[in-house]
Amino acid sequence: MLEYKAPKREIQFLLKDVFHFEEHYKGFPNGQDLDGELLSDLIDGISEFAEKVIAPLNQTGDDESCHLVDGKVITPSGFKEAYQEYVEGGWPSLSHEEKYGGQGLPHSLDIILQEMLSTANWSWNMYPGLSHGAMNTLTEHGTEQQKQIFLTKLVEGQWTGTMCLTEPQCGTDLGLVSSKAEPMEDGSYKITGSKIFISAGDHDFTENIIHIVLARTPGAPAGTKGISLFIVPKYKVNDQGESGEFNEVHCTALEKKMGIKGSATAVLSFEGSQGYLIGRENKGLTCMFTFMNAARIGTASQGVCAAELSFQGSIKYARERLSMRSLSGTKYPDQVADPLIVHPDVRRMLLTQKAFAEGGRAALYYMGQVLDIKESGATEDARQTADRRLGLLTPILKGFLTEVGLEAANLGIQVYGGHGYIKEWGMEQIVRDTRIATLYEGTTGIQALDLIGRKVMMDRATELKLFISEIKEFCGKYGPFATSEEAKRMRMFTKPLGILMRQWNFTTMKLMLRASKDRDTAGAASSDYLMYSGYILLAYMWALMAEAALKKLAEPDCKDERFYKAKVKTARFYFDRILPRTKTLVKTMTASNKSLMALPEDDFIF
Amino acid sequence: MLEYKAPKREIQFLLKDVFHFEEHYKGFPNGQDLDGELLSDLIDGISEFAEKVIAPLNQTGDDESCHLVDGKVITPSGFKEAYQEYVEGGWPSLSHEEKYGGQGLPHSLDIILQEMLSTANWSWNMYPGLSHGAMNTLTEHGTEQQKQIFLTKLVEGQWTGTMCLTEPQCGTDLGLVSSKAEPMEDGSYKITGSKIFISAGDHDFTENIIHIVLARTPGAPAGTKGISLFIVPKYKVNDQGESGEFNEVHCTALEKKMGIKGSATAVLSFEGSQGYLIGRENKGLTCMFTFMNAARIGTASQGVCAAELSFQGSIKYARERLSMRSLSGTKYPDQVADPLIVHPDVRRMLLTQKAFAEGGRAALYYMGQVLDIKESGATEDARQTADRRLGLLTPILKGFLTEVGLEAANLGIQVYGGHGYIKEWGMEQIVRDTRIATLYEGTTGIQALDLIGRKVMMDRATELKLFISEIKEFCGKYGPFATSEEAKRMRMFTKPLGILMRQWNFTTMKLMLRASKDRDTAGAASSDYLMYSGYILLAYMWALMAEAALKKLAEPDCKDERFYKAKVKTARFYFDRILPRTKTLVKTMTASNKSLMALPEDDFIF
Repeated sequence: MLEYKAPKREIQFLLKDVFHFEEHYKGFPNGQDLDGELLSDLIDGISEFAEKVIAPLNQTGDDESCHLVDGKVITPSGFKEAYQEYVEGGWPSLSHEEKYGGQGLPHSLDIILQEMLSTANWSWNMYPGLSHGAMNTLTEHGTEQQKQIFLTKLVEGQWTGTMCLTEPQCGTDLGLVSSKAEPMEDGSYKITGSKIFISAGDHDFTENIIHIVLARTPGAPAGTKGISLFIVPKYKVNDQGESGEFNEVHCTALEKKMGIKGSATAVLSFEGSQGYLIGRENKGLTCMFTFMNAARIGTASQGVCAAELSFQGSIKYARERLSMRSLSGTKYPDQVADPLIVHPDVRRMLLTQKAFAEGGRAALYYMGQVLDIKESGATEDARQTADRRLGLLTPILKGFLTEVGLEAANLGIQVYGGHGYIKEWGMEQIVRDTRIATLYEGTTGIQALDLIGRKVMMDRATELKLFISEIKEFCGKYGPFATSEEAKRMRMFTKPLGILMRQWNFTTMKLMLRASKDRDTAGAASSDYLMYSGYILLAYMWALMAEAALKKLAEPDCKDERFYKAKVKTARFYFDRILPRTKTLVKTMTASNKSLMALPEDDFIF
Repeated sequence: MLEYKAPKREIQFLLKDVFHFEEHYKGFPNGQDLDGELLSDLIDGISEFAEKVIAPLNQTGDDESCHLVDGKVITPSGFKEAYQEYVEGGWPSLSHEEKYGGQGLPHSLDIILQEMLSTANWSWNMYPGLSHGAMNTLTEHGTEQQKQIFLTKLVEGQWTGTMCLTEPQCGTDLGLVSSKAEPMEDGSYKITGSKIFISAGDHDFTENIIHIVLARTPGAPAGTKGISLFIVPKYKVNDQGESGEFNEVHCTALEKKMGIKGSATAVLSFEGSQGYLIGRENKGLTCMFTFMNAARIGTASQGVCAAELSFQGSIKYARERLSMRSLSGTKYPDQVADPLIVHPDVRRMLLTQKAFAEGGRAALYYMGQVLDIKESGATEDARQTADRRLGLLTPILKGFLTEVGLEAANLGIQVYGGHGYIKEWGMEQIVRDTRIATLYEGTTGIQALDLIGRKVMMDRATELKLFISEIKEFCGKYGPFATSEEAKRMRMFTKPLGILMRQWNFTTMKLMLRASKDRDTAGAASSDYLMYSGYILLAYMWALMAEAALKKLAEPDCKDERFYKAKVKTARFYFDRILPRTKTLVKTMTASNKSLMALPEDDFIF
């Protein structure tokens, strides 16, 4: 069975040496308490829960999957009990407002801790995970009464929540939503319609489930401008917050999926269910977008989780499995063959997984700090600056990290050879579970359009240029006039990164110019542009990590030389073997649009 | 449900316009009969069987999978009956010797026809497919008596065969095989040992199964030099060729796999089973290698099948599913939204699938002709020349086509968005089924080592240079002095291809030089070198197809303009958007070996 071990050494490196979280937290409400000790305690607590309680349920959850019996969803053995333990530990409430029972801690803490739960068992963690979406929506847009009644129960974990957006005829294009919401005399709405792909849409964890539902009121404008948002509990809730009679939210089917089988993906039928408007009528989509960034960063983390878990499995196998001899001479003469890890091509696969896992984690932490500032920064200016940075980087993180996470998971199968294809080893499950990450919360294509269209071109690349400046400034520290030993070694990274900054800027300008003449340019370049940006972002993360490691190595009493040297070597691998992917991407994204658009629709197949 | 339609127009284009198969076949035994009409008849026959009989069993086979009940394997509903129909149609015997009941037709015909069966239902086609491996081994190395007894029944399809190589402790490294073969007084051997991953290892199609088994005789040298090959029938066979008592070949388990669930992957336990030596003692591995190329080309085709089937599914969905409006202006004002196919990024995915499916098919046909010449060429010189070409291209085809086939299948999921992840739509099954293609018959890493090590470096690039010359000569036809309209248009392809020929040659020399000093060079560059070679091979195929299409378009009475124009446009897409991947690969494969080898084994994870 595949085991999970929380990468605590990696986490501490990022917290302390790279991103200095203790200092960062000092500027935030309740952040003063978040010193190194408390952070370590939280990490120890969640990692133990992740390793011992939910990781062992990962493969069994996949085997058993969820079942719909007499209209009720039965989750895999142990899932429900694990959730109880999670709630008793007070984990759901960390980053939510104290007024509603939360602990008011910065959002980044959730990102840090959730990664461990998600890597241990992504399917299980979707149940509490989806609740965060519902809680964030209520926090931002709910009335005081709605918060008192619904939010408090969600924060304590007594209920869970969902987000009900997709319908059979529309996923990406929410303008086509057709569920109906008819106003009632008592101020509530009667909700009717069918929703699909509802994660944690029904289960046996809690006595009630709070659905956040997109629907149209009578006479609402067509398209996205006529969509409103509603709270629809599975069981009606009275003013004292007690769950009562069934609210006609029927789970009519569970989807049969490629993976995340422990997670119940429900088809829900709202049959005249009582709902409560959140925010204003017809402003539903705007309300949704306010928490979209957080949800997308959450999904981005799935790429990191996949890379981490598949790396852990691969490294173990590569050191144990004996096959062939090293081409540069036998390494283990006492054994019948050398272990896989002596072979350069196996090392290439392992290092790719490692580079994506550790680089991706760094990107999540970087974003976590931006998110903290956006939410609770000291000044309005700081909050808005962070919001723009968040807007630019979110589609890159979501699109890029999920794509490379899937690549890493596939490499995990590849390292195992034929055994990778067999269920019991656990590697193929990672691929199946992760395959959805590039689809939900907006496909990679949608992230790519969001990035190049909204976040870059419509912004006239203003925020992109600021980000480029930040990286340029970082590189500038190690320019040709810096003569320290550290600077000399850092130039191996900052020199190519600096060149890429010019290329990123220039290529963006070129595409913007072309887009002003041919509207298909943004779409034609989008996916390659996204991936290109992602490889650069990760290069920046690896350069930051290399810098932190070299600083530690320069300390006279460096205690952990091997760890820090490994960081520098992995950074070098990334720059030598992964970053050159930008060479292809810069070429393909600037190729003529004709190569995509010239073929008539009817002539794709004969 | 996902439907399969045999791409007959594509097949005819390759047969007639690109590779002139009718002419090719004239030089072969029985090839005179293979005129256009007979070829069309065969294609019609097999495509109808593929579309109507086995394609409908593809998804149900995945749902039901195989079951082991009381030591016997039950295959999915309809599989057995379909096999009967296949045998009654005489399909197993096409390319086998007439002396043993075959029809003696060239091997390439199998490649052409098998693609349709395999695309329709890869799992089902593995049962007859594995028989070919056993038949080829018997044909090459069996005694006359062995052929009369075993081969004839396999050729008529009354029995099927398997290849039993892998054991729990060894897959790639067959030197570690530990199954035993003890010589008996009657000249037979007593076989004892455990074999895993045996495709079609047990089933309910036929009354007997003929296993070809690798095992060691007492006192055999260690490693690969002490392995012998045996025929081990599931039921003992008497001199009249009748199956009799159970031969103690026990199916102890079926593997639970990611995909190809309709195919029984058996764990077989040989418990003192009676076996018959094939060829000479200790020469088993050499015997295996003689048919390895054919088996690897067969596996290469799985990549083409995956690309074709996922493309067929994707194009249908992309034209039907409505989502958003084209950024360059509404295309279908009468509908609530435009179909997916208007979006450039969706077209990028569709064209990528199309380019891999059609380009990969061309590569298979090209190889089919080489294989024919290798087997039945007019002169020894021609046969040896073809054998060398086969040796060079086989690892490229197997490694590259399976990798890009998997990419195409994943794009199929991506085009479908969330629905791609749901079983009923069939797209995720293609990914699961295809995922094994880069693993069995030698992983991509093994193909890559075979290519760069044995086929290029140990050959001092002799055969590679001949292949490069062939492509150069092709490009030379369209050099700057060629002034025809066709030549001008062909230069769009032949110019970049010509430049790549110099780069391929130069980079190979560079790596060989480095390898002479650092033995890890071959391994460190291998996978990137393989993929690089693959993209070039496919570029050559697309240039050949573009040439054929442009020739047809230049005919005054060209009847099928749209088809041929689509070919040229797809070629352009390939050169503009896919071929630039070589830019990254040439960089990464020549990066310092240190980037892979510097990290100590113990320091990959902390």
